This record gives sequence, structure tokens and C-alpha cells, in this order.
Amino acid sequence: MKLVTYVAGREAVGLVDAHDESRILDLTPVVGDRSLLAVIEEWGSLASRIADADDLVVVERPTLRAPFPVPRRDLFAVGKNYREHVAEFGRSGYDSPDRSEDLPARPIVFSKATTSVTGPYDDVEAHPGVTGELDYEAELAVIIGVGGRGISRDDAMGHVWGYTIVNDVTARDVQRDHKQWLLGKSLDTHAPMGPWAVSADEVGDLAALEVSSTVNGEPRQKAPVADLIFDVPELIRVLSAGMTLLPGDVIATGTPAGVGIGFDPPRFLQPGDVVECAITGLGALRNTIR
Amino acid sequence: MKLVTYVAGREAVGLVDAHDESRILDLTPVVGDRSLLAVIEEWGSLASRIADADDLVVVERPTLRAPFPVPRRDLFAVGKNYREHVAEFGRSGYDSPDRSEDLPARPIVFSKATTSVTGPYDDVEAHPGVTGELDYEAELAVIIGVGGRGISRDDAMGHVWGYTIVNDVTARDVQRDHKQWLLGKSLDTHAPMGPWAVSADEVGDLAALEVSSTVNGEPRQKAPVADLIFDVPELIRVLSAGMTLLPGDVIATGTPAGVGIGFDPPRFLQPGDVVECAITGLGALRNTIR
Repeated sequence: MKLVTYVAGREAVGLVDAHDESRILDLTPVVGDRSLLAVIEEWGSLASRIADADDLVVVERPTLRAPFPVPRRDLFAVGKNYREHVAEFGRSGYDSPDRSEDLPARPIVFSKATTSVTGPYDDVEAHPGVTGELDYEAELAVIIGVGGRGISRDDAMGHVWGYTIVNDVTARDVQRDHKQWLLGKSLDTHAPMGPWAVSADEVGDLAALEVSSTVNGEPRQKAPVADLIFDVPELIRVLSAGMTLLPGDVIATGTPAGVGIGFDPPRFLQPGDVVECAITGLGALRNTIR
Repeated sequence: MKLVTYVAGREAVGLVDAHDESRILDLTPVVGDRSLLAVIEEWGSLASRIADADDLVVVERPTLRAPFPVPRRDLFAVGKNYREHVAEFGRSGYDSPDRSEDLPARPIVFSKATTSVTGPYDDVEAHPGVTGELDYEAELAVIIGVGGRGISRDDAMGHVWGYTIVNDVTARDVQRDHKQWLLGKSLDTHAPMGPWAVSADEVGDLAALEVSSTVNGEPRQKAPVADLIFDVPELIRVLSAGMTLLPGDVIATGTPAGVGIGFDPPRFLQPGDVVECAITGLGALRNTIR
């Protein structure tokens, strides 16, 4: 199933029509006033009721928000998790003070503040005066269903509720100058998310999904999820080793080569630019820089 | 005022008795079932009612929890923000790949996951199998009252609700090996917080407060807040430049010299060790490693 958080007068959870992805069906008769986070927390009892629902009404002119407009905590995100992106990042000199093209021996995990989250078609703020070096990063994001700690690789996929897309927008100068990446990754509106939260059963071979991005229609990134250095089970194993994962946690798994700093000279985003990030079966984000 | 979150049957907000800090007064008659986060969000209307309350009842055998047992999002934390600690960290070799004793040119900001938060007297898990290099970091933590973005140095203190203590417990091997610090800073129970949330009006000269720690009674850290490289107004200015701060946000401001990796050889925490972190007027955390 493809679920959304939408606004049409009020904020509610909707179901993407399986026959027409442009149509959103109001799930209020099934889930009441629950948020999507609450729906996922109660998935065991709600999944079949949602699947069996009929006579759902099409919502007129819904505005899609991020699946979790206010996440329960910061998004987890993984750096340098595609081989060719590691090389372009190393060459760029922005990975200060590391500047290494070596593959990471362990996952590099940081966070994006809750306030960076914005909707799938919302504008992304340029933040002039804070950054002059705005970049995009299309990423597959995992949504945790059942929380836990000490999760093994073998058990990991049983903790995945599903997937969505995150554009891990990055202020490269801020990322570099502050050493730890949180601030450069957390400016307001710098985590467009969505358009849908897609349950895992609807995604076939995860490794075969293709992550791609364009800027003003020009192709920039394109790689299969199979190219991840640390795959989804490994990320869940490592993150949960000593830190309890919670239902609704979002883990952005890293971005492929083709970001702005991969070019020489770098090609940073400018106001008016339109960035699209797409993943097979998960839809696409489309955001304009303002 | 000194406020607490406590459990005595149910979880509630309490007031530390101004005449006897060992006594907690039940604030339910004034704040109802609000959490401390909600109290701070509504501080404008609640402050005088709390100050004027009389006939508050002493709570029998309260167990103190962290002021925010489940924070609204990850804690912000600042690295390398005391001169002598920058030097000991650089010498230790744990600041991989940086290994620099140079003072940071800009604040180094990372986060501690919400699930790392624990109470002021709770046990801290040793996490054998995840880390063998457990360390302590006593820190002054700022609690944001009024949120905002683009906050100037001059306006910054008006956004501070008050202060508490955080022990920024750190798994040094995890911190080093994963490059970005989130995982090494976010193991469950690795952010003891409290014992009180102390409103700013009760703290006199912030710079004069002394941050200190002991391990099994042996003095380890001791420095005045005046030694901060980036002071509280500067931290609020930098964090809020492009990222909206929210009421209840916690910013741990960094730790002074004297942590375990400052010794040669390093002195890591072991099960049974008792760590105390104290700050003038803010009380003390006391946690046993288990």
C-alpha cells in the first residue's frame, strides 16, 4: 500500500488509489484522526482493515505533506554509502578534514533535524547568508515498523515497515566548515520527503530499485540500490546495536554519484532550479529552490 | 524555579522546594497533566501561577526522571568547546581523522538520539559487545524556551528558558570508527539528564558556574562556563541561523578537560563505576555503570 499525509482543510492520512496514482482516498473512516506515525505503530491491527476498506472517497485537491511532517525525532542519514559517490566526495575536497577516496570501513551516520522536513512538492529555501553552496542528494529512505535493539541482519527486514524518498539537501560549505555534518544537513526545508510511504510488501526486489535525480530536467544521479556499500539489513544491524530503533524512524540510506560537488567546477543549486528525485515504484519528489 | 519530571505512581511535573532541595512538591494542581515540555511551551501563562502556588503537597518517594524523558527531538550537542579539552582530544588520537589540537573555527554540532536520554540517578549501560571504551563528559545544557530562527547574539538569552546538566556519555571507539559522532554518542542510557530544569532567572552569572565531574569520588573535570570557546549566545546564533529552534530543545554546550581519553593511558569507565556530574546551582547527576 502507498500511504500519504495530506491536507485538504485538515491534515489526514490517505491511501493512494491502486488504479490511479494521482488519486488520494480518504482513510479517515478506517484510521480516524491518527497520524501516519500512529498508523504505523498500530499496523498489526490496521493493515488488514486498510486493505479491506471499500467505498473510500477521493479527496478533492489534496496537498501532500511529508509522510511524517513532524517526525518523532531527527532523521537518521548515512554518508558515503555508494562507491562512486565516495570517490567524487573525496576528490571535491568538501569532506574536510578527511578528503579520502577510501571506502568507509563502517557506516557513517548523522542526523537531519526534524525541522528540515518538508513536503514532496514544497519549495526548498536557498538560505542566502547561511549557505552559498546548496546541493541535492536523492536517497532511498527506510521506514522502521517494529522497533528494537540488537537486531540481526537476518531479522532486519522484519523491522522495516516500508520506504520513501528523501532529498538529503546539503549546504556544502556549512557541512565542511562545522566538521560534524548536522548543521549543514539540517537547514529548514532541506529534507523533502515522500511523496508516499510505501509498505514493504509492495516493493519487490529492493536491490533492483533505481535511485535517480534531475536538475531542471537534466539527469544527474542514477544508480541501483544494489550499489549500496552497506545494505539495508546491515544499516539496521549497525544502528540498532546499542541504540533502540523506534516505529516511524526514518533512515536515509545514502546518495549515489552525480551530486553538485561531483562536477568540476561544482554545480550548486540556484533559486529557481527544480530538483526531482525518483525511485522505481516509490514516486518522485519535485522541489523548487526559492 | 527548579522543575522536575518525577514518577510516584504516575509521571508528573514537580517543583523543587526552595527551602529544602530534597523535597519535591506536586505541581499537578497548577499544571494538570502537562509534561514539562508542555509547561515550557506555555511558560508565559504558567510561570506566575507556579510562582504564586501555595499549599503544594510534598511527594512521597518520587523517582526523578530526566526533565524531558522523551525529548521532542534529538539533543543538540557541541564538541571541542573548551580549550584544554580540545588539546586532550587532539593528543588522544580519538578525533579521527582530524587529530588536531587547533581550536575549532566554528562550533562542532552533532546530536544524541532521544533514546539515549535517561534519569539523573539511573544506571548507564556499559553495552559490552558494542563498545569497550566508555567515557564521561559533564556538560551545561541550555533549554530553549521561545523558539526561533535567525536569532542574534543580542536576542539569544531571551530564547533561553533555563538550564540542566547532561552527561554526554560517549563510546569512544564507536565515535572514532564511524567518523560522524551520532552513533558513538547515542547508545541507550548515554545521556543522563537533570536532576532539575532550572529557570534562567534563578541562575546568576552564567559564566561563573563551575562544571565538574568525579568518578568513584575522584575529581576528573572542573572548569567555569566562562571557559567556553563558543558561548551560549553564539551557539544559539549559529544553530538558529538556518534551523528553527523549538521550545524544549536541549543544547549540551560541550565538556571541559579531564575526560577518560585525556589520560595516558586512557581511563575508560567500567561496570560498577559511579560518575557524578555537577554544576553550581544546577545540582548533580549520579549514575552507576552497569
